[in-house]
Amino acid sequence: MRQRKAGRINRAFYIGRFQPYHLGHHTILGNIAGEVDEIIVGIGSAQRSHEPENPFTAGERVVMVSRSLKDLDIDYYVIPIEDIQRNAVWVSHVRSMTPYFDLTYTNNPLVFRLFEDAGVQVKRSPMHQRDVYSGTIIRKKMLSGEEWEHLVPDAVAETIDKIGGVKRIREIARDDVG
Amino acid sequence: MRQRKAGRINRAFYIGRFQPYHLGHHTILGNIAGEVDEIIVGIGSAQRSHEPENPFTAGERVVMVSRSLKDLDIDYYVIPIEDIQRNAVWVSHVRSMTPYFDLTYTNNPLVFRLFEDAGVQVKRSPMHQRDVYSGTIIRKKMLSGEEWEHLVPDAVAETIDKIGGVKRIREIARDDVG
Amino acid sequence: MRQRKAGRINRAFYIGRFQPYHLGHHTILGNIAGEVDEIIVGIGSAQRSHEPENPFTAGERVVMVSRSLKDLDIDYYVIPIEDIQRNAVWVSHVRSMTPYFDLTYTNNPLVFRLFEDAGVQVKRSPMHQRDVYSGTIIRKKMLSGEEWEHLVPDAVAETIDKIGGVKRIREIARDDVG
Amino acid sequence: MRQRKAGRINRAFYIGRFQPYHLGHHTILGNIAGEVDEIIVGIGSAQRSHEPENPFTAGERVVMVSRSLKDLDIDYYVIPIEDIQRNAVWVSHVRSMTPYFDLTYTNNPLVFRLFEDAGVQVKRSPMHQRDVYSGTIIRKKMLSGEEWEHLVPDAVAETIDKIGGVKRIREIARDDVG
Amino acid sequence: MRQRKAGRINRAFYIGRFQPYHLGHHTILGNIAGEVDEIIVGIGSAQRSHEPENPFTAGERVVMVSRSLKDLDIDYYVIPIEDIQRNAVWVSHVRSMTPYFDLTYTNNPLVFRLFEDAGVQVKRSPMHQRDVYSGTIIRKKMLSGEEWEHLVPDAVAETIDKIGGVKRIREIARDDVG
Amino acid sequence: MRQRKAGRINRAFYIGRFQPYHLGHHTILGNIAGEVDEIIVGIGSAQRSHEPENPFTAGERVVMVSRSLKDLDIDYYVIPIEDIQRNAVWVSHVRSMTPYFDLTYTNNPLVFRLFEDAGVQVKRSPMHQRDVYSGTIIRKKMLSGEEWEHLVPDAVAETIDKIGGVKRIREIARDDVG
Repeated sequence: MRQRKAGRINRAFYIGRFQPYHLGHHTILGNIAGEVDEIIVGIGSAQRSHEPENPFTAGERVVMVSRSLKDLDIDYYVIPIEDIQRNAVWVSHVRSMTPYFDLTYTNNPLVFRLFEDAGVQVKRSPMHQRDVYSGTIIRKKMLSGEEWEHLVPDAVAETIDKIGGVKRIREIARDDVG
Repeated sequence: MRQRKAGRINRAFYIGRFQPYHLGHHTILGNIAGEVDEIIVGIGSAQRSHEPENPFTAGERVVMVSRSLKDLDIDYYVIPIEDIQRNAVWVSHVRSMTPYFDLTYTNNPLVFRLFEDAGVQVKRSPMHQRDVYSGTIIRKKMLSGEEWEHLVPDAVAETIDKIGGVKRIREIARDDVG
Repeated sequence: MRQRKAGRINRAFYIGRFQPYHLGHHTILGNIAGEVDEIIVGIGSAQRSHEPENPFTAGERVVMVSRSLKDLDIDYYVIPIEDIQRNAVWVSHVRSMTPYFDLTYTNNPLVFRLFEDAGVQVKRSPMHQRDVYSGTIIRKKMLSGEEWEHLVPDAVAETIDKIGGVKRIREIARDDVG
Repeated sequence: MRQRKAGRINRAFYIGRFQPYHLGHHTILGNIAGEVDEIIVGIGSAQRSHEPENPFTAGERVVMVSRSLKDLDIDYYVIPIEDIQRNAVWVSHVRSMTPYFDLTYTNNPLVFRLFEDAGVQVKRSPMHQRDVYSGTIIRKKMLSGEEWEHLVPDAVAETIDKIGGVKRIREIARDDVG
Repeated sequence: MRQRKAGRINRAFYIGRFQPYHLGHHTILGNIAGEVDEIIVGIGSAQRSHEPENPFTAGERVVMVSRSLKDLDIDYYVIPIEDIQRNAVWVSHVRSMTPYFDLTYTNNPLVFRLFEDAGVQVKRSPMHQRDVYSGTIIRKKMLSGEEWEHLVPDAVAETIDKIGGVKRIREIARDDVG
Repeated sequence: MRQRKAGRINRAFYIGRFQPYHLGHHTILGNIAGEVDEIIVGIGSAQRSHEPENPFTAGERVVMVSRSLKDLDIDYYVIPIEDIQRNAVWVSHVRSMTPYFDLTYTNNPLVFRLFEDAGVQVKRSPMHQRDVYSGTIIRKKMLSGEEWEHLVPDAVAETIDKIGGVKRIREIARDDVG
């Protein structure tokens, strides 16, 4: 988090659920890293974990993202953002939890709209090869026993291995007795 | 909100999400206006906005309802009601946010049941031409570019136009990158 | 709520807890009424009631304010605003619950600061004879049996009388057995 | 809740939504009763009621379970557990609301995983004839007018009869006007 | 929880924070036990623990109350009640979490008022020797090392001993570094 | 956040409200830095800001802490932790939001107790010259116009200057009109 340049720091914000963080996200952040001084990565739906769609805790996702970002030559902040369930206040919520930023990158239409309405500059960041790099696809591969490690940075594969992430996804995916 | 008659004021409560307020609602409120002194209109799920099913904020819906009700010769209150996520306390929640009322009109079976259980008089208010006047249908027409303005009071069409409501619905309906 | 002038409506926002609404508030709103087309009155801490500092429900306060405002020749909205317990998102919360407004009047330093930070125009509205017109003083007089009716608009005194407000304040003020 | 044996009390925890409590649950608890000194029954999603999937209040479910458990010769606690919407803290939440327990029985994979992660001993308790004894099936039979009373303990059938449970389920299942 | 009499069960509700449950509470419940068939004891502020004013968890308080009530020849339910922070819905909240009851005993003026407003019969239950039997006094004695065990039922003293309650109170009372 | 050593990373957790981060905190973290591989700093009461006791947002505090920690030769994570208002689940909440850690340093007796109860190793970290380095004292100096900059790291003084922190503290400290 050293300040790269003299003068005002140019910070960009990027948010995702990162269930898990994959090479699609990593490519986008790599591109953003070329355009700004510092990146703030928001870990969305931070309070969720141990669900088929949200298997990993915010803390686990902080590790995945932080360790992967070390490969990029950029200073960064990784901040868990809990859901607030009110779209109209969501941008203020995000801003209160994060260092000041000038610019948001997103490909999510709602996030785009909310930041634009709030007067924050927003740029589109289309997901790289979205039919290949996708949290949904990766979680399915984990469930079915297919290879998935090549779709995420090495640091993510190591983290998931260490916490027994694949076993967790399989367990919580099983039918609930209700 | 002038008091129409001497003696005790006869107030009725009517609640909807009003996404948006349309002529089906307006016909019902017109009928109710003939039977009571004052109407309280509750704006349900007040905290929701910028969602495909709930595009408009409570404040925007307050404007739609208030401006439309001026056509009816009735005194009224328009009150946002946030969700409380516990059906068993919902009637108490509504009563705490609104002026005292004697009577509820609803066609929603759950609302009917909850008020009846709480000892409040409830009357059914069947939606007028429900296959024509429906929030779901109107939002679909907005999405697909069809005419929808004839399904809502003029004041609602003006309000939606002024806030860029159709553009908002289209933006947030686009696929989320996830 | 008729639109007073052709062209754009000039709306101001004013918020208070109104426990109860008194002539100090009424004087301020009378002054504001001379400067704008419509007033939005926010009923703060709407979810609180039956407490020594907050004896009246939001609905009761809506009645107090609405009936009093009829004396002023101004169109108005009266909107309960629940606490959100996060100052950094409070302005967004208020804006989502209310019709659009251009201007806030307040004498509360925090409210002043939060609106100013959010880029909303704010004007100071000093309380008229604050040592006389004060919710705290009025609640104390109710407790001790002194005259208080001359400190509030007639409609407020009638409303409090009708709901047994003085009895309520005395009951809940008694020592709690714990 | 008399202490059955000298020495340390051996308590087991079992949780369900019990919408309603049926003979499948009762068989499991009968088996558990043979293995421990005391049973703690958690009433899950306690804050939910008057929904098609969750028709009964926590209090009604407390009565169903408590009256049924009297047939088993075991001391028990019946505790409503409100949802906390954060899987990662759910076990701590349960433990804070209940007497200390050594052991959990469950057939729910998520509950199994969360307790295991928290270092609590967990045993699987497969539902007895799950295609016969099931809350979903019982609620469907109530809706369609079929016999359901033979699927629940007598005390449950009596409780549901007394509170008008079948009428409630039918009313809230009707289509919402929206 | 066997039904004592033929015909309708007469249930009373009594709520406290029980930090800890003491002989003052026990005397009141002994008196109530002579007047009704079943008692429902609500454990108030259930979500609080590990605070100087609220040292014990709801689960620990459930044990204190349940074990003490076995001495009284009465059927009972012990139900944790989480705070809902809205007085106007509190009675509905309590009723949703508890078996149906006809009557409340309380000496708390707010509880008295809220139940009376909700149309539930309420009777006053003055605390027996309130200057002797008091949670505040007992917690102070625990802090200062004085005798306190004679102020609570034996089962409560045993429970507090077993969970290391006095040590906990002393630890959390120490000055916070802030 | 580079991994300092081969083998398992030794991480410590330290939490504070950091209103603002000062040299007392910095001395403690400097000491901890000598004992572990990585530090996780939790920003407590993250959702609070713009209050006399909690003037700064979580995001502003993240900047204060992150920029100050760059002076220490240690890898670190800075994580906002929102209050959860339930002591019994607080440790689970913290763990879900943070990377895995083995050890907590604290001088707060409640934090000490909660972590110890949860089976996490805790060490005491007495505040260095607590009568000099204290958030309360620093906020008072800001209010009264005394020198305070020498009590915080340079990066903190710069951050507070940049966001107009002293002006904010003075504004929100003024008496509320109520």
